[in-house]
Amino acid sequence: MDLTLIAIACGVIAVIYGIFTSSQVLKAPAGNQRMIDIAGAIQEGASAYLGRQYTTIAIVGVVVAVLVGVFLGLVPAVAFVIGAVLSGAAGYIGMNISVRANVRTAEAARTSLQGGLTTAFRSGAITGMLVAGLALLAIAGLFYVLVGVQGAEPESREVVNALVALAFGASLISIFARLGGGIFTKAADVGADLVGKVEAGIPEDDPRNPAVIADNVGDNVGDCAGMAADLFETYVVTVGATMVLTALLIGTQAADITALMALPLLVGGVCIITSIIGTYMVRLGKNGSIMGALYKGFWTTAGLSIPALYLATQFALGDLNAPIGGGSAASGLVEGAVAEQTGGFTGMDLFYCMLIGLAVTGLLVWITEYYTGTNYRPVKSIAKASETGHGTNVIQGLAISLESTALPTLVICIAIIASYLLAGLIGIAFAATAMLALAGMVVALDAYGPVTDNAGGIAEMAGMDDEVRGRTDALDAVGNTTKAVTKGYAIGSAALAALVLFGAYTTDLTEFASELGIGAAGVDFSLSNPYVVVGLLLGALLPYLFGALGMTAVGRAAGDVVLDVREQFRSNPGIMDGSSRPNYARTVDLVTKAAIKEMIIPSLLPVLAPIVVYFAIAAVAGREQGFAALGALLLGVIVSGLFVAISMTSGGGAWDNAKKYIEDGNYGGKGSEAHKAAVTGDTVGDPYKDTAGPAVNPMIKITNIVALLLLAALAGGTGV
Amino acid sequence: MDLTLIAIACGVIAVIYGIFTSSQVLKAPAGNQRMIDIAGAIQEGASAYLGRQYTTIAIVGVVVAVLVGVFLGLVPAVAFVIGAVLSGAAGYIGMNISVRANVRTAEAARTSLQGGLTTAFRSGAITGMLVAGLALLAIAGLFYVLVGVQGAEPESREVVNALVALAFGASLISIFARLGGGIFTKAADVGADLVGKVEAGIPEDDPRNPAVIADNVGDNVGDCAGMAADLFETYVVTVGATMVLTALLIGTQAADITALMALPLLVGGVCIITSIIGTYMVRLGKNGSIMGALYKGFWTTAGLSIPALYLATQFALGDLNAPIGGGSAASGLVEGAVAEQTGGFTGMDLFYCMLIGLAVTGLLVWITEYYTGTNYRPVKSIAKASETGHGTNVIQGLAISLESTALPTLVICIAIIASYLLAGLIGIAFAATAMLALAGMVVALDAYGPVTDNAGGIAEMAGMDDEVRGRTDALDAVGNTTKAVTKGYAIGSAALAALVLFGAYTTDLTEFASELGIGAAGVDFSLSNPYVVVGLLLGALLPYLFGALGMTAVGRAAGDVVLDVREQFRSNPGIMDGSSRPNYARTVDLVTKAAIKEMIIPSLLPVLAPIVVYFAIAAVAGREQGFAALGALLLGVIVSGLFVAISMTSGGGAWDNAKKYIEDGNYGGKGSEAHKAAVTGDTVGDPYKDTAGPAVNPMIKITNIVALLLLAALAGGTGV
Repeated sequence: MDLTLIAIACGVIAVIYGIFTSSQVLKAPAGNQRMIDIAGAIQEGASAYLGRQYTTIAIVGVVVAVLVGVFLGLVPAVAFVIGAVLSGAAGYIGMNISVRANVRTAEAARTSLQGGLTTAFRSGAITGMLVAGLALLAIAGLFYVLVGVQGAEPESREVVNALVALAFGASLISIFARLGGGIFTKAADVGADLVGKVEAGIPEDDPRNPAVIADNVGDNVGDCAGMAADLFETYVVTVGATMVLTALLIGTQAADITALMALPLLVGGVCIITSIIGTYMVRLGKNGSIMGALYKGFWTTAGLSIPALYLATQFALGDLNAPIGGGSAASGLVEGAVAEQTGGFTGMDLFYCMLIGLAVTGLLVWITEYYTGTNYRPVKSIAKASETGHGTNVIQGLAISLESTALPTLVICIAIIASYLLAGLIGIAFAATAMLALAGMVVALDAYGPVTDNAGGIAEMAGMDDEVRGRTDALDAVGNTTKAVTKGYAIGSAALAALVLFGAYTTDLTEFASELGIGAAGVDFSLSNPYVVVGLLLGALLPYLFGALGMTAVGRAAGDVVLDVREQFRSNPGIMDGSSRPNYARTVDLVTKAAIKEMIIPSLLPVLAPIVVYFAIAAVAGREQGFAALGALLLGVIVSGLFVAISMTSGGGAWDNAKKYIEDGNYGGKGSEAHKAAVTGDTVGDPYKDTAGPAVNPMIKITNIVALLLLAALAGGTGV
Repeated sequence: MDLTLIAIACGVIAVIYGIFTSSQVLKAPAGNQRMIDIAGAIQEGASAYLGRQYTTIAIVGVVVAVLVGVFLGLVPAVAFVIGAVLSGAAGYIGMNISVRANVRTAEAARTSLQGGLTTAFRSGAITGMLVAGLALLAIAGLFYVLVGVQGAEPESREVVNALVALAFGASLISIFARLGGGIFTKAADVGADLVGKVEAGIPEDDPRNPAVIADNVGDNVGDCAGMAADLFETYVVTVGATMVLTALLIGTQAADITALMALPLLVGGVCIITSIIGTYMVRLGKNGSIMGALYKGFWTTAGLSIPALYLATQFALGDLNAPIGGGSAASGLVEGAVAEQTGGFTGMDLFYCMLIGLAVTGLLVWITEYYTGTNYRPVKSIAKASETGHGTNVIQGLAISLESTALPTLVICIAIIASYLLAGLIGIAFAATAMLALAGMVVALDAYGPVTDNAGGIAEMAGMDDEVRGRTDALDAVGNTTKAVTKGYAIGSAALAALVLFGAYTTDLTEFASELGIGAAGVDFSLSNPYVVVGLLLGALLPYLFGALGMTAVGRAAGDVVLDVREQFRSNPGIMDGSSRPNYARTVDLVTKAAIKEMIIPSLLPVLAPIVVYFAIAAVAGREQGFAALGALLLGVIVSGLFVAISMTSGGGAWDNAKKYIEDGNYGGKGSEAHKAAVTGDTVGDPYKDTAGPAVNPMIKITNIVALLLLAALAGGTGV
């Protein structure tokens, strides 16, 4: 249990870092009264949003917690609540820091670029470390209490069910936060533009528009809170699934199963330390490159993580070259060819798998930057296509969005094969864990984005100097890239995590075979089984349907915004002449309500689909085929979801930066016909990259987790 | 062999129908000199296109034929050539009728709507019957020569390889025709608009624009020739694959394998007769509904096909209730659960499977009409979204395109399960065969579209009366729907056909196991095999990459058109003042060259990907895993391709008709801001629905066929 305690200590360090850095950020001056007013309006909106969202989620959460309790027992229900509360807390705290750091970043940018960068990045780093720290504390704490305190066997059903339920809690909040936040931010954005710019003829960031504050709130809601909950969830699911898979596949065969199960926790712990060190390396160099400064932090963390992972593995497992589970017994540990080829795996193999995880992270960052950065062919080609109109801009953007799936897929495929050859399914799980171990640093880079975005808005609205505005613009442009990069990382790691969950599902089926009434022949997962084909097709459908619902929801909610703002202008004429302050909270509350309402059906989709498909197929063709179709559904969601998510997030990012590229003076610059076309592309890309695309991540995992819980429930539940 | 001879006779009847109806169409008056001039220019363009395209394809074809000969033997090489030549011929003849019927349709519309409808539909019916007739003649003729004349065993490798090679020939031409035609038509369309309307300021269908004729040629090239080759290929592949699967799965176990293998041929034959009867039912009713007239023909064919299929099955198999393959031996015929559940299958089961195929056809037609017709929610929602701008139009269109995949997927899944429960994989194959048996009628409805489209253009350019123009517009509007409907049918049947091919692949692997060096454990197609996961991911990538390449190609080729037209205007000033005729053939030849050049890499993708993936995985993990990954790749292409193709074709059709809906006077009508936004959506939808989307069909099948050929070649080839 020592390893677990070390991991807990690292989690605590992350929280302390968060508290300490928060006080640093909050100590900074918040600017003049006008700036404080604007920031206050955004904070007011944030409170309105959080109040409403958490009320609604709490209702759903309580119902689900009761269901988990009834079908699976008390411990999983408690674990579910812990996962849900901490996932919500990660988003809540992140957003709260973000809405306070925005105005301080604008104020700091008055003095110097470095000042603005430091404030914005520190704020992001707080969110990042809290996400990683709280996630690690949740899993490690649960594991410690169950195994260390209550004395449960680490590989027992009790521990496994609790870990899965913890992940479920985190995922359920995450899909709400991601999708709700995504609908919120884009509904406010589109609605504000339609009613403000088009109808009332007031500028984009004008504080007289009640929806403009909602728009600013939306940046924090979607890009900060939603993203934080998503990464928290991915972290919990990945580390949890790695532990579950270790328990299911290796069980008592390992010499020290507790150490092996705790290794992912230790990996998470040491990478929190390397991430914290990395945050202190974010400084502008001589060339003044902001991206360079951020990358300095990222690469420091990645570089330091290599020896850290080696030492952690050695510390946990002792002799790195000893076969895990002991010599010839190893053939039972891992499936298929790998056992024959390697005769089991060693600690060294696991270390290599983790290096693969780090390499995948680096490559995905690089590929996403290529597809969304203004320096490369894809974005330039969209900008060029804008010269010939709206249609050609969108066509080229769609072509790029389709194309952008190719390299990430190849990288993921190679990673799957390489880590599988090294250590079977467990190898894939450890590669995914290493990817997620860097989450603290990656989230820091991402959460920096909405802060600078808001800072730019505040600088504009408060009428600050052009010089200051220039600095916030420079910071913001980089924020666009880091946001896109995180999304590539998030979906890549989500795909690997989902594969690990799928591995847990198939292993679970074998484990539970007798309780589930599965015959001796087992479940036929072969591709030549038509129920598998049907499962794959239905699974592949889910991200499409989910995307369709998400994009339609944005349109409908934006319509609600338009009606509300029109009504505020009509009933309070003082708004337009500046004598009266609009009711920001009302618009925010309306968008919140609309977003919450609109996200219910899409969020139910991944929760209910596995259950419906299982029972439908089981009714027609028996339990075995039901399980086969359900398993195929899970893989179908992963395969199709990966492409839908990457194409949407990369395509959206490319459209966004193609507009920026033109605004930088290319192809006619701001106000040209090309620019108008690029604005259209950007609008199209918005719900792609900020609503539908990123929400596919939690959707993929929720489907898989629900399937695992369904198995546990069908097998007779209360493993407690 | 009697059954085969009957099928051949039906094929001959189709050809006679084509010749007879051609003479009817060509006898009709071709209008005044201006009309004849314009039509002449389109014909000139068509000749230029065909000359160039077939020259290029011939080079590729000869190389591939030699490779087939070397690796598989002489008979497959000859079969390949037959498939290729007839697939090309179907497209060639179809286009030639189409470019002659267009002007005659315009002339007939001068007298009455019924006159225009009759001429246009007859022209489509010629293409339809020739596609079905030639396809049936190719397969039935080959089967007759090999089995009836040369005395080969019907289930021998010689026959199987020859049928697969025949399908390969058809598919290779088809992917060229579909993709090349798709790039051609959209490059000409977009290019003509850019340089004519935008730069030179001349109207859309102005004969002074050298690219406008290329645009008209493109309608025929893409929508007629490309579509005809595609459906020819789907027909050959589906019927051929059903025969191959029957041979592989049942072999000598059936009482009369020759009759069972010939049944798909007979099914195709009788449905040609019902299709011909249906074409005579296309008449305007009292309500004057054109769509109603066309549907009268379609439903007549579908209705008559039910008893026809029953009688054909009874005629071929005798007692419909006798188990096929004989009682208890049946458990070896079909895989897995079905054998236990049904104890084999009967002729009646096969008949039910064919009814399922007919039902799928009807449902897909209905669903596609719902998603692309102006009377329903989807198109109206896009039109409404156009009110708020280009961006919201595209967002709503993308949402609809994603959503439109749901119902077809459910229909296909239910059909798979139902036909599998009835008669296993063979049942799925017969369902697909019944779908394709209606190809003659469906192609007739589709090929009607480009004729009316051209007729409208000719009426406009020749300055005919508004009344005439009104009639051609009415005919054309319906053509848009029928074109969309056919695409839904084509991709649905392609998915089922591909599943049948996949079944043939897995069966083939078992058959060839010893020659292929596969161990006793066989190939592990289980989803928990990571090579299967990798194969699925790589397969799912192919349609995305293919789509990206196709859409980018349209953009680039359109650029070439712009340059050429500028140069013609510059070097020949007489064009603009009407004193000199532009060099239409040059522009057409240029677009052809660009289209052919642009389609090489995308077309190589599905041919080379299976080979590369097999050898790469086999090198890393051994032959078995290579076959597993290859099989998964095939299924990945089907699963992902279905969604990419449906979303693109339905979405594109919906955008197109949303524009038409606004032009009908809704949301401000022609010239309004909403209309401009709808034009953008239509432009985006163009390469979606006419280039990338439909070309996915042959791509899916080519991947599967190449895999089958690879197996045959690896197993030592010359089964002759």
